Amino acid sequence: MTPETPLVGLVMGSDSDWPVMEEAAKALDEFEVPYEADVVSAHRMPREMVTYGEEAASRGLRAIIAGAGGAAHLPGMLASVTPLPVIGVPVPLKYLDGMDSLLSIVQMPAGVPVATVSVGGARNAGLLAVRILAAHDPELQERMGRFQDELNEEATEKGRRLRGKVAASRTGFGFGGS
Amino acid sequence: MTPETPLVGLVMGSDSDWPVMEEAAKALDEFEVPYEADVVSAHRMPREMVTYGEEAASRGLRAIIAGAGGAAHLPGMLASVTPLPVIGVPVPLKYLDGMDSLLSIVQMPAGVPVATVSVGGARNAGLLAVRILAAHDPELQERMGRFQDELNEEATEKGRRLRGKVAASRTGFGFGGS
Amino acid sequence: MTPETPLVGLVMGSDSDWPVMEEAAKALDEFEVPYEADVVSAHRMPREMVTYGEEAASRGLRAIIAGAGGAAHLPGMLASVTPLPVIGVPVPLKYLDGMDSLLSIVQMPAGVPVATVSVGGARNAGLLAVRILAAHDPELQERMGRFQDELNEEATEKGRRLRGKVAASRTGFGFGGS
Amino acid sequence: MTPETPLVGLVMGSDSDWPVMEEAAKALDEFEVPYEADVVSAHRMPREMVTYGEEAASRGLRAIIAGAGGAAHLPGMLASVTPLPVIGVPVPLKYLDGMDSLLSIVQMPAGVPVATVSVGGARNAGLLAVRILAAHDPELQERMGRFQDELNEEATEKGRRLRGKVAASRTGFGFGGS
Amino acid sequence: MTPETPLVGLVMGSDSDWPVMEEAAKALDEFEVPYEADVVSAHRMPREMVTYGEEAASRGLRAIIAGAGGAAHLPGMLASVTPLPVIGVPVPLKYLDGMDSLLSIVQMPAGVPVATVSVGGARNAGLLAVRILAAHDPELQERMGRFQDELNEEATEKGRRLRGKVAASRTGFGFGGS
Amino acid sequence: MTPETPLVGLVMGSDSDWPVMEEAAKALDEFEVPYEADVVSAHRMPREMVTYGEEAASRGLRAIIAGAGGAAHLPGMLASVTPLPVIGVPVPLKYLDGMDSLLSIVQMPAGVPVATVSVGGARNAGLLAVRILAAHDPELQERMGRFQDELNEEATEKGRRLRGKVAASRTGFGFGGS
Amino acid sequence: MTPETPLVGLVMGSDSDWPVMEEAAKALDEFEVPYEADVVSAHRMPREMVTYGEEAASRGLRAIIAGAGGAAHLPGMLASVTPLPVIGVPVPLKYLDGMDSLLSIVQMPAGVPVATVSVGGARNAGLLAVRILAAHDPELQERMGRFQDELNEEATEKGRRLRGKVAASRTGFGFGGS
Amino acid sequence: MTPETPLVGLVMGSDSDWPVMEEAAKALDEFEVPYEADVVSAHRMPREMVTYGEEAASRGLRAIIAGAGGAAHLPGMLASVTPLPVIGVPVPLKYLDGMDSLLSIVQMPAGVPVATVSVGGARNAGLLAVRILAAHDPELQERMGRFQDELNEEATEKGRRLRGKVAASRTGFGFGGS
Repeated sequence: MTPETPLVGLVMGSDSDWPVMEEAAKALDEFEVPYEADVVSAHRMPREMVTYGEEAASRGLRAIIAGAGGAAHLPGMLASVTPLPVIGVPVPLKYLDGMDSLLSIVQMPAGVPVATVSVGGARNAGLLAVRILAAHDPELQERMGRFQDELNEEATEKGRRLRGKVAASRTGFGFGGS
Repeated sequence: MTPETPLVGLVMGSDSDWPVMEEAAKALDEFEVPYEADVVSAHRMPREMVTYGEEAASRGLRAIIAGAGGAAHLPGMLASVTPLPVIGVPVPLKYLDGMDSLLSIVQMPAGVPVATVSVGGARNAGLLAVRILAAHDPELQERMGRFQDELNEEATEKGRRLRGKVAASRTGFGFGGS
Repeated sequence: MTPETPLVGLVMGSDSDWPVMEEAAKALDEFEVPYEADVVSAHRMPREMVTYGEEAASRGLRAIIAGAGGAAHLPGMLASVTPLPVIGVPVPLKYLDGMDSLLSIVQMPAGVPVATVSVGGARNAGLLAVRILAAHDPELQERMGRFQDELNEEATEKGRRLRGKVAASRTGFGFGGS
Repeated sequence: MTPETPLVGLVMGSDSDWPVMEEAAKALDEFEVPYEADVVSAHRMPREMVTYGEEAASRGLRAIIAGAGGAAHLPGMLASVTPLPVIGVPVPLKYLDGMDSLLSIVQMPAGVPVATVSVGGARNAGLLAVRILAAHDPELQERMGRFQDELNEEATEKGRRLRGKVAASRTGFGFGGS
Repeated sequence: MTPETPLVGLVMGSDSDWPVMEEAAKALDEFEVPYEADVVSAHRMPREMVTYGEEAASRGLRAIIAGAGGAAHLPGMLASVTPLPVIGVPVPLKYLDGMDSLLSIVQMPAGVPVATVSVGGARNAGLLAVRILAAHDPELQERMGRFQDELNEEATEKGRRLRGKVAASRTGFGFGGS
Repeated sequence: MTPETPLVGLVMGSDSDWPVMEEAAKALDEFEVPYEADVVSAHRMPREMVTYGEEAASRGLRAIIAGAGGAAHLPGMLASVTPLPVIGVPVPLKYLDGMDSLLSIVQMPAGVPVATVSVGGARNAGLLAVRILAAHDPELQERMGRFQDELNEEATEKGRRLRGKVAASRTGFGFGGS
Repeated sequence: MTPETPLVGLVMGSDSDWPVMEEAAKALDEFEVPYEADVVSAHRMPREMVTYGEEAASRGLRAIIAGAGGAAHLPGMLASVTPLPVIGVPVPLKYLDGMDSLLSIVQMPAGVPVATVSVGGARNAGLLAVRILAAHDPELQERMGRFQDELNEEATEKGRRLRGKVAASRTGFGFGGS
Repeated sequence: MTPETPLVGLVMGSDSDWPVMEEAAKALDEFEVPYEADVVSAHRMPREMVTYGEEAASRGLRAIIAGAGGAAHLPGMLASVTPLPVIGVPVPLKYLDGMDSLLSIVQMPAGVPVATVSVGGARNAGLLAVRILAAHDPELQERMGRFQDELNEEATEKGRRLRGKVAASRTGFGFGGS
């Protein structure tokens, strides 16, 4: 497919998780980090899941992002069969607002960590993968720094617009006006 | 160990779960159901766990009881590699009172059920395994019926004692005494 | 109605639970397990509920699936008057996302187990009933195995489609593209 | 036992609930309301429980107080077989701090109310029974009024002591001290 | 307004609670129990609220139903200034699904009970008021018994319809079909 | 913008919080309290946020209102760099109903208080700022008293309308009608 | 008692809350802010509570700190009868870890704010009162600034000790040690 | 202290967090990863905290582990001022079992990720840091693989002991015993 070896494996229990998980892909795209995306279900493809995890490091992956909902076992199971850092995204389902997904992912026993992000926080999962890669890649780290500067600028600009809107709304009838 | 083939596999993520899970063993003992007990950790022995589940039915097991705490993946993962009924026991850990264990076990996705019992409810896991076996064993079912009669008698006896205690406490100073 | 004796009793507190509980019926249909469906309300038909539970085993049922919401007493009460395995489905109501239903069903006292599935997890309740029957029915167990293979194939196919979609979306502007 | 007909039935799922439920008995004693106390388990004595509820009104009871923990079905089941007001006391168990008991008791479906008090709030259950009886008994209602006056006096006295203690603690090193 | 003295006071913190609380009024109407409905806000009308509670018994009320949401103080505050039984209805607000309302109402300190019903359970509040009145009114109690019989009949009829629907859906392609 | 020095700083993590936070501005407008509104993000503008807090008191602000959602760090961080009272508004996000926002704001460690209001309770944040200013401004305090009187009158008027509506609905078919 | 007029009213529902609430008193003492402490129970002294709130401002108080547990109505009720800022301290009771207290205090309806601090956070309640007073008292504000500097120094010193301890523990067997 | 430059910064809000956070240090020691430990409080040392984060990468750190409790702002604030991966450890406090700490850390807004581990899960934080470093260090990665093998062996040995203990307990009185 692409000449570049993927550095990040982006997997999820079902393609119905894609609308949530796509945000991780977009973040990786923004930083031009090559990745692969796949359905790897802990419960429907347990053996393939084990194989995926076992081969991930030797295939060149540096990190895995795994999204799952409800009794979300994928991130933790992958973490048990790979030495790579595994990032878990709690996907919210119809009920319980992702609280079940969050606890199923984050409360891992000592020995097998999963780097958990917020409920539905796939974009941050992508950005965390970038930071992990950037820990050894000065150029990528600098880029992350610039990205943070842009966040700052956007927020600053939003402040400017908000101040303008509030000032405008006061004109004519404001409390401290004219 | 015993000439009888185990019918129930009683597994847990760590031997530290035994004080909780032992109650399942006792229940099976009371009904003379042969079982095996073992440590099978989803996170520390993922491959053995898959093998355990895959071979369970052919080794003669009729049900599996799996206890785990926190991000409790063992029951659900076993259920994904065996066609047997899997009973999950949420083991409470130091924090969160087992709520994480419960949600990690019970909130399984469609396709892979786990029969979940209460937080720390290993005794009921044993009794549920007995009921499952008894569904096809009239003698065992009758025995379960007698067990329920005994529960009834014990509760009735407790009522008798309570009524006695309350009556005694009233003598001399009770509202309706004399 | 049908010449076959039902093996599973599928009951619920109200016919308003049917849209949720129907998924259990579908699962049983897929495995050609004969069942009966009925409204048996713990709170509106307490005596009939007791009778239903008391007669279930002698009428030939091998398992009961009971769905209820809120202060969901039906599964536990049935379990107290039958030696059969009872599967409880927490039906989510308008508020609290089924958390009340779940706790009311799963937190049974020692002595009277209920095999609880996820909030709204009626399909898994049906599949759990099949697994219980299959514990003594090699053919049905094999079928459950094939069902699990199909889940695997579907998930694998979903992965194929997802990989295709992601690859396509990259063409032209992808990070690793051309 | 006593020449007076009990007006309140005080029941619980097990005598292990007595240390909690005893506070209801004490409150009834303080108001000289005749009551009976018994073990009536929804799960271990389902038929006796139904009978208890069915006969309660004709035996002269005017209200039932029912305490139960975990999947607490006793209050709601009694309410379904009696037209009397049923007061439910959520008994806290080892885990979950009584949240399961509370939801299992209070979240009753439309048609069958349970008057729920706080987790472990048996004393208030007794006082609520008194208020219910007092709704038709001017003398008892006046007594409840005096009881409320006493609560007021006790709280006022506590305030007096607290003010004294705080004043004393300031002498010599207080912020506003001389 | 009406020649009959109200027996039940139905109050709420705001008229925006009426859509929820109206169900209590309907239940009282069904049992022909005279009641009054009013806005009595603990936070916006604290003095009137105290007066309402203080005068309730002498005005002839036998019970008060109070609905409130969020930091729901109305039921508990009324209970502190009246010897009447006070029934609290947790009104769900935009966030938290009424969990805040429930805990604010049910967790009353020892001495001042509130008879709490389910989140949004105003109909049950009305029925509980009827049961309280019926505790001293054989005719009303009999009527409550008939009401319970009707609940039973409706549920039974729902079962009949469900069985018919399920049977029909099977014709032609059912598992047990001819 | 205005000749009056702002007394209250109204800040939020993003302009997407404005629809919630605007209610605080309206409350301040009603009391003619001069304020400024701005975007100050703890996570996207950490240094500017520190500066904002450090300069707030010397610029003449008397209180800060800060709204944030999820892992809501803005109110607490501002409180750590200013001696002014900081009012925190938990902004509800898509999941978890603001429970994460609430706990992230209210559970501050000893030494650094945040005056927390309800989930989405920006209007109360504005009113709390007014009360804080009014603690030293008799005229403003009197105005707050009048505001409370108006709340009382509105609630009283709502009661009047509700009584009318209920009375009307009974005419012709009410229980106490005719 | 003291020649200085109290500026802060420190009240609680019972003297059993004193061990928690005492921390507020200590904080006020540290800043030499005159206060009064008293028991004012919303549920046991409702009329006195209303009077306390109504007279608070005219007696010279500038802020009220109110602690309460469970269905904690004291802070909100006081806020409804005074124009002063009211600070609420959720006192944790035996069950539910203060979650009920927190929600009962913080979730106030629009119009009547309570400045809520953390569960058991009485010390922060005292410090918040100081900040409120300091908003109009440059000297007190400067003192709060110095207090914050001291917090900084203590934390810095703790860091120094921790670095020392960690360095010491490594000597001889450290990972990177010579 | 040591000739090796620390690769991981291990910081916490107070030295009272050390008993929890020490487990991270031990894990790093086991893998001979050089680290530094310090107190960096978001709320008591906000400016130093910003400086710590800003300089972390240039000082040679590759990852930061930050532990905090309650309204736990340290991990998220550090993540906002460094491009490094930040691992957050929710430290449980006296109340709420660390649920507040968890949500305050994990629910970060899009743009600023924190790799969150379980409540009190400092050991896993250390292991996650090792995995992050190992993503670019084949030798360290191999070592992590061996560590996972050891976990496997320990769990296997625990199984052996458990089987022995269960077998022993049966001798003489076992169900299936000779």
